[in-house]
Amino acid sequence: MLRSELGEAEPAPCVGLEQVVVPAPRPLPEEIARAVGPGAVLDGHEHRVRRAAGRGYPDLVRLRAGRLDDAPDAVVLPGNVDEVARVLEICSREGVAVVPFGGGTSVVGGVEPLRGRFERLLSLDLRRLREVVVDGRSLTATLGPGLRGPEAEEALNAQGVTLGHFPQSFEYATIGGFAATRSAGQASSGYGRFDEMVTSIALAAPAGDMRTLEVPHSAAGPALRELVLGSEGALGVITSVSARVRALPERRRYEAWMAADFDTGADLVRSLAQAGVLPDVVRVSDQAETRVSLALSGQGGAKRALLSSYLRLRRRAGGCLMVCGWEGEPAAVERRRALSARILRGGAAALGGAPGRAWERGRYEGPYLRDELLDLGYLVETLETAHTWSRLGELYDAVRAAIGAALATQGTPGITMCHLSHAYGDGASLYFTFLARRRPGAELEQWRGVKAAACQAIVEAGGTITHHHGVGRDHLPYMRAEIGERGIETLRAVKERLDPAGIMNPGKLIAGR
Amino acid sequence: MLRSELGEAEPAPCVGLEQVVVPAPRPLPEEIARAVGPGAVLDGHEHRVRRAAGRGYPDLVRLRAGRLDDAPDAVVLPGNVDEVARVLEICSREGVAVVPFGGGTSVVGGVEPLRGRFERLLSLDLRRLREVVVDGRSLTATLGPGLRGPEAEEALNAQGVTLGHFPQSFEYATIGGFAATRSAGQASSGYGRFDEMVTSIALAAPAGDMRTLEVPHSAAGPALRELVLGSEGALGVITSVSARVRALPERRRYEAWMAADFDTGADLVRSLAQAGVLPDVVRVSDQAETRVSLALSGQGGAKRALLSSYLRLRRRAGGCLMVCGWEGEPAAVERRRALSARILRGGAAALGGAPGRAWERGRYEGPYLRDELLDLGYLVETLETAHTWSRLGELYDAVRAAIGAALATQGTPGITMCHLSHAYGDGASLYFTFLARRRPGAELEQWRGVKAAACQAIVEAGGTITHHHGVGRDHLPYMRAEIGERGIETLRAVKERLDPAGIMNPGKLIAGR
Repeated sequence: MLRSELGEAEPAPCVGLEQVVVPAPRPLPEEIARAVGPGAVLDGHEHRVRRAAGRGYPDLVRLRAGRLDDAPDAVVLPGNVDEVARVLEICSREGVAVVPFGGGTSVVGGVEPLRGRFERLLSLDLRRLREVVVDGRSLTATLGPGLRGPEAEEALNAQGVTLGHFPQSFEYATIGGFAATRSAGQASSGYGRFDEMVTSIALAAPAGDMRTLEVPHSAAGPALRELVLGSEGALGVITSVSARVRALPERRRYEAWMAADFDTGADLVRSLAQAGVLPDVVRVSDQAETRVSLALSGQGGAKRALLSSYLRLRRRAGGCLMVCGWEGEPAAVERRRALSARILRGGAAALGGAPGRAWERGRYEGPYLRDELLDLGYLVETLETAHTWSRLGELYDAVRAAIGAALATQGTPGITMCHLSHAYGDGASLYFTFLARRRPGAELEQWRGVKAAACQAIVEAGGTITHHHGVGRDHLPYMRAEIGERGIETLRAVKERLDPAGIMNPGKLIAGR
Repeated sequence: MLRSELGEAEPAPCVGLEQVVVPAPRPLPEEIARAVGPGAVLDGHEHRVRRAAGRGYPDLVRLRAGRLDDAPDAVVLPGNVDEVARVLEICSREGVAVVPFGGGTSVVGGVEPLRGRFERLLSLDLRRLREVVVDGRSLTATLGPGLRGPEAEEALNAQGVTLGHFPQSFEYATIGGFAATRSAGQASSGYGRFDEMVTSIALAAPAGDMRTLEVPHSAAGPALRELVLGSEGALGVITSVSARVRALPERRRYEAWMAADFDTGADLVRSLAQAGVLPDVVRVSDQAETRVSLALSGQGGAKRALLSSYLRLRRRAGGCLMVCGWEGEPAAVERRRALSARILRGGAAALGGAPGRAWERGRYEGPYLRDELLDLGYLVETLETAHTWSRLGELYDAVRAAIGAALATQGTPGITMCHLSHAYGDGASLYFTFLARRRPGAELEQWRGVKAAACQAIVEAGGTITHHHGVGRDHLPYMRAEIGERGIETLRAVKERLDPAGIMNPGKLIAGR
């Protein structure tokens, strides 16, 4: 399908990890090894390369081509909060840039080793901070920042609870990363975004520790928790996160529906949200994404033909696929599903559980597809935004048109697809995926052209530059449109107070003066 | 009842407003009148006195005694956002302190005219900023800060929607005040706290304007909206608030239940919250508050006797009153009530709708009672906190004991009562009311003794110093316990950037260096 629609492509090269060339490491102050112990400073080639890039398209292209501009001089693994504080103190004094590192799954350049005005840079890998303490009465858990998604869930599940936070990066991303980037999981409508789950947070900043009180809510001034959430390593290191958990669901019911078109599907989700009967998972693919999903789906040809006939019969050919999921105690799942279905039936046809379960099985596969498509020579990239219901259609049209036009300008006309997810009473997010032939040797230029066009369209339509990917390096130029001059100045004031030497994650989130 | 339990008291004096003595006003820069127009600067005695105090017990005591330490030199009423900006610019340059003023209902000294290092001080009354724009599709409303609760509701109701925000201060408090203090309404379990409703906010700071994007959510860094919420006039003036609204409920069903004791009642609310079936309004009075409520209730003696017999029969004598309310579309109200009732029946007896409706009728009466009780010579004051479910019992015991002991130390043993409200999955707030004989001539000393003891107990138990009253002047000494040294430094950094001259509401929220 890709070949027939996008043209024949030249497979992209892919070197082994050991062949990736990076600059020689510069020696770090010896005090650091004394602070964390000599076994906790790693400067081998593979350790450095593995913390040198995230998982965006440009990261993959550079890694596969074996040419990275830079890598951390070493990877430092503090064993406790005191060691984090000591490392930050040494780095502030000695002038060493620090990039906090969790799962390395940033798709916006969040872990890029940018040195700013420093000659030395270390990656502060938090994998040794993996505390799990459950308060079963308050249904909260205090979690170390280095816990990966599956590790955290395993420990919580053993005590009968879950965070319910399942972003596409789940398999690698960490608790600290979820908090630092305001991650949103696929079941965010039911369990909330990660930032909504957090009840208290601790930050080790170069200027000292900050910890918010663990209480359900406070009116004691501005919410400092909300300053640490989304701080992307630029203010300090998140050393502990307390979050609300839920009883492990006894039942998960996922199913697919087909809406007549994208507007109808979006409007159904709006009605569900505003009636207070949102499923825990809800997404609507536009026509392009529906077509590609059905083509790529693991279902055999016969099954697919059956589905097509069924849909034609019900005059939904060319329709838009919806996935809805309810989780929890069985009776509640059935009750809530019935309430949702009453609204869904107003504009969509039920396709049953099979396609819903197929989506559930493949829910973490998207990121791996990038590599497979690059093997075949195709670019695939995603970006996301959000807006109020009143302006969502306008935003959709503008971004889709901008991506399409930019791909055509590059001489690589492509497929632009989108789904709506993360719904709220007042709006929703839009998640775009685009596919095109790779421009051999000019991949980064090609990517930059499309990314810039899409971001510009988002900003002009008044959408947010990111609903859940974060700012990192890639969205930094759009922060003025997002929060204005005074917003930037405010973040800068906070950074200057908490990180006076400016060592924390330079070049991300907050531009230097 | 008060006489028999607290002893005979000496009625407190109460002078007329015109007899309240305040220092003579100092002249403000003439530029200010040019900026807002001469009719928008009021310096009459009554105007000044009405903006010189909030509605806490110390405020009432001082007003009634006719002796206020200070009053604003004038009241300035800007007519639009540009005028707000111009006034702040002049005041920054000329050194005039500015106290933003909404409804004047602060019970923590939030509008106290503290001059800090400035000789002149004006009250910036925002009553002319009363915009209402409803986005019916996104279910949001953009509201001017000067709208009082009833005005905002009337305008919204005319378009079929409501904020659902009904704090006890509702009749006078304003949209700007709700945002500036993180107000929580009585139906917060259903509609959310005010800060949860806000989708975007605009601040006019002396250094310039800040406005957050109106989108349902963003991951573009720390949430600046959450810095402006709770800023209590210390960073700038809130000039516009966009908030989520809901369809006007077709039905409200309020009813009372009686739990065996406070622990049982609290545990029922915990179960409701953790099962996701919280009523929109839910509160549990402890035994003391239940007893006083029944004694003070408007029900005739016969009805009360009937209630008592019924409760004795069901072995709930000495029980704890719960009020539960559900609002919305009739079928949803009944469905949700049935789900709540299934849990409530596990530890409480239904008392039917009459006592629930009685509570609803009297929901805004509390603040007026203060004056009536002072007329009789009794002190009444309230304070509130919140904690996780695990530590709520400990907090309750500690604060109750501290208030009781402090009242006894003052030679005025009293009644301390409490209710639990504003419930969450992870905890709830506790709202204490205490009654005692007034100490004639030493009212402020008496109040300070009890307030300090209660606050100290809250801090030691790890609760928040305020769940929804705010910081103002009264809670300032406890901010170090609440957010720590780094938290204070962070707020100070933000204030210094947004309000370099330090003119905004001196002496509240953020202590000067």
